[in-house]
Amino acid sequence: MSFELRDRDLWGRIGRIETKNGVIETPAFMPVVNPVHQTLSPRRMYNEFGCQVVITNSYITKKHFEERRDLDIHNLLDYPGVVTTDSGAYQILVYGEVDVTQEEIINFQKRIGSDIAVILDIPTGWDVPRSRVEYTVEETLRRARDAVPQIEGDDVLWIGPIQGGKYLDLVAHSANEIGDLPYQIHALGSPTEVMERYNYTLLVDMIITAKRNIPPSRPLHLFGAGHPMMLSLAVAMGCDLFDSAAYALYAKDERYLTSRGTLRLNDMRYLPCDCPICSRNSAQDLKNADYEERTLLLTEHNLHVTMGEIDRVKQAIAEGTLWDLVETRARGHPSMTSALNRLSDYSKDLEEYSPGFKGKGVFYYDYHSIYRPETTRYNRKLIENYVTPYDATTLIMLKAPPTTPYRRDERYLKIKENLPEDDGFNICFYSAPYGCIPEELSETFPLSQFEIAKPLDKETISFTVEMLERYVSSVKPSRIVMVTDHEELDLKAIEAMKRIAAKTSAEIRVLKESDLWNIDAIDMASKIINLKN
Amino acid sequence: MSFELRDRDLWGRIGRIETKNGVIETPAFMPVVNPVHQTLSPRRMYNEFGCQVVITNSYITKKHFEERRDLDIHNLLDYPGVVTTDSGAYQILVYGEVDVTQEEIINFQKRIGSDIAVILDIPTGWDVPRSRVEYTVEETLRRARDAVPQIEGDDVLWIGPIQGGKYLDLVAHSANEIGDLPYQIHALGSPTEVMERYNYTLLVDMIITAKRNIPPSRPLHLFGAGHPMMLSLAVAMGCDLFDSAAYALYAKDERYLTSRGTLRLNDMRYLPCDCPICSRNSAQDLKNADYEERTLLLTEHNLHVTMGEIDRVKQAIAEGTLWDLVETRARGHPSMTSALNRLSDYSKDLEEYSPGFKGKGVFYYDYHSIYRPETTRYNRKLIENYVTPYDATTLIMLKAPPTTPYRRDERYLKIKENLPEDDGFNICFYSAPYGCIPEELSETFPLSQFEIAKPLDKETISFTVEMLERYVSSVKPSRIVMVTDHEELDLKAIEAMKRIAAKTSAEIRVLKESDLWNIDAIDMASKIINLKN
Repeated sequence: MSFELRDRDLWGRIGRIETKNGVIETPAFMPVVNPVHQTLSPRRMYNEFGCQVVITNSYITKKHFEERRDLDIHNLLDYPGVVTTDSGAYQILVYGEVDVTQEEIINFQKRIGSDIAVILDIPTGWDVPRSRVEYTVEETLRRARDAVPQIEGDDVLWIGPIQGGKYLDLVAHSANEIGDLPYQIHALGSPTEVMERYNYTLLVDMIITAKRNIPPSRPLHLFGAGHPMMLSLAVAMGCDLFDSAAYALYAKDERYLTSRGTLRLNDMRYLPCDCPICSRNSAQDLKNADYEERTLLLTEHNLHVTMGEIDRVKQAIAEGTLWDLVETRARGHPSMTSALNRLSDYSKDLEEYSPGFKGKGVFYYDYHSIYRPETTRYNRKLIENYVTPYDATTLIMLKAPPTTPYRRDERYLKIKENLPEDDGFNICFYSAPYGCIPEELSETFPLSQFEIAKPLDKETISFTVEMLERYVSSVKPSRIVMVTDHEELDLKAIEAMKRIAAKTSAEIRVLKESDLWNIDAIDMASKIINLKN
Repeated sequence: MSFELRDRDLWGRIGRIETKNGVIETPAFMPVVNPVHQTLSPRRMYNEFGCQVVITNSYITKKHFEERRDLDIHNLLDYPGVVTTDSGAYQILVYGEVDVTQEEIINFQKRIGSDIAVILDIPTGWDVPRSRVEYTVEETLRRARDAVPQIEGDDVLWIGPIQGGKYLDLVAHSANEIGDLPYQIHALGSPTEVMERYNYTLLVDMIITAKRNIPPSRPLHLFGAGHPMMLSLAVAMGCDLFDSAAYALYAKDERYLTSRGTLRLNDMRYLPCDCPICSRNSAQDLKNADYEERTLLLTEHNLHVTMGEIDRVKQAIAEGTLWDLVETRARGHPSMTSALNRLSDYSKDLEEYSPGFKGKGVFYYDYHSIYRPETTRYNRKLIENYVTPYDATTLIMLKAPPTTPYRRDERYLKIKENLPEDDGFNICFYSAPYGCIPEELSETFPLSQFEIAKPLDKETISFTVEMLERYVSSVKPSRIVMVTDHEELDLKAIEAMKRIAAKTSAEIRVLKESDLWNIDAIDMASKIINLKN
């Protein structure tokens, strides 16, 4: 199989999976299609909704159509795109067992021409004792190993499922072991139950754990997940494929999907959506329609908004704004905000795989934004790589001007102009959320192009001061001259510089910017120089 | 005129304005239509986009079509809905003057059958000295007074414009004076320049100032505003009507509107939208189309997303989740977050007009959410109205259980069961962000139904402890028993209670919840009782 990466942001990626029946671009959502009856035809999904891939159940297909000669799943569904088949594992979860062997169902999936297929794994489920979870992990691994001779060398892409549920050590073990087997795609089980409980924090832990333990070159599928609210978060953690029947099941239950959560049609007076269905109809139209018509319209809306969210995620990856989208979606439900908070705990991991500059300025909305890779990376590099100017014994620390690039700031220019040509000065700006910005870095990305909301919150101030302190502690100037102001960040920065000065016996002088604005710039510069000489 | 309110949330409202040519439901967006040539026909706007009202320029109409007999603006535009006409004030702003008198343009607007019309005001503009701003305010007021005899008693709805730009005292004066005149609608000028500079913080100040100084029963129009990103914010502050040509002008410039900001088609690989245009076309399709076709498609997309956002705002008002939507939109740009921060400064004003319970649980995402009316109102009412149980000298302060309603919590029930029947106990929960929740209020809205993201941020903790402290300081118990834990909120709450105890010489005892969980409930209760006796 070829899985070719086209673009990346955070751990998210735009990729192309080649199957025997065509290419799918990831991240991709696969609507679950019932092989026996459909509200919305797979043909329409392909033509009108842009669905390049659907998923259906091979176990149900076998039950109903096994006797048919020349059974081909594409013909059966009347669907020209890529077809993934599940194996009956879901039925094991629901009914405890199925009357088919893994060998039979693997052969059946091959026979009907599945493009992507799944072995007969044992789903972990929810609310089961650890011993049962261990069994599902080991039994799935055993079956995955058993299946290898049967699946090796064919042209189907085989999914190797990861079990373990909420037991992260078991998820890690499961992912690690199956990652050693020759599967083309991996899939993480049990998210549905976790999401039904709005336990998105646990979902973050589960996905990150799985992702860390499989080969990064293999696509990761998230079983049974497809609510538009959580797609960006899951993609940000490296999920490439999704499947869900929610678009159809919710419609039957008169529930209306949005990227900000789920609404009940009954509670709706307006349709908060731009899709073709919602542009043509009012909430009252949907309520007035008969049940079948309403179900179809809601199914179409739900699928439109899900497919649209995939495009929003892709465009965000292309722009390098996936973090912004995740922050936006975190306001769909407090549990999504909790998940964002948890994701922030992994910011160093995210930074490692996230690409650099995409030409777009970076936005900081509040403390959630300080965990963006751009901030994490800048601070790591500043400490690891940045060499202060030779002989710079005096650190001149200026409060950052209100707009970038800082080097065009009049105040900076005047100070610069009036300093003797002498390498003894290390001029830096301090600025939220980056901490310290040496003058010569101030015109590089991301320092040259960012915007931050005001006033700063306490977390952002603490973070900034901590970064500032780390840098200054590492350069150990013998003199510190601060040109500062009276805002909370300034006061905390002054305290921090005084702490460092006390510890390193450096001289420190604090000049309030507001006092300095109106005096002659030469005076200001000479104050600084006087301190040095 | 009748302006009938149907629903409210924050200062936002769903209303119905009756005009001589039909009813419009507010908040409403009026696309600016050129009377001479249109990319997208007003007839299609009415039929396909749900535009109940458009706005066009009477000055340009006069220039081109004055000679026509029986000139009717609805026929000219081929538009069956409500037509608003502007007066040429925009041309004054751009060209300095116009060759028409106010009397002429008012008569012309009447003659052509405008449903809503504007006097010939003098826009404030931007970057003009205060003396000029004062002139625009006074001259607009003079003209507004002059026009009264001419417009009184006719069936047109007349807009009385508010000037003043960034000078809030002048905005207040302007709004106050014009609010005394018999205009049916008011309109705030100059937002376009403010928004072009992304100065949404100033926009908040301007709108709130205008709103506070006009009669609340009159609709407020925001001149030249219609970016989907800012509609929810403006509605939350009481704006009812919007007009903008951005949907068309941006399209000509290949800019693509979204509720999260503006994109350039050139930078787009995907269309992050569900509208009929974006469902049918790919980004590449739009790029490949010839300029005229592309402009039409982008115009249609831009109008779809703008009209869709109006529906999202209305549905949020209906649900009582307008604050949530404003929080979501605040992640469109850091300047929108700054605006949300500024709006939070007015949380007491918002609370005053915001309605109560709508049956939906309240969501707290982070510190931005603590300024919701539900929190502000609860804390005000608790201090103003709540009477502690008679004779309650012992305050038992329990850390709130993880789920609502608190009274079903086992720990609470056991303590309750083991307390003697005695009015001497005042049992409360402490909980973010509400502060103190007396047991008998814990099953009322919003305390019975809310969710808050974890972990709490510093602002939320400070706010909670401050509210807690205010309540306990006002009830002055002689004994405080805390059942608490080791999280940051707990530690700060303990400190606060100790401060109060020290000040009022109350006895205080702190029991750590984690120590108590496993001991016999009777023991726990007796510990508490022992303290009392």
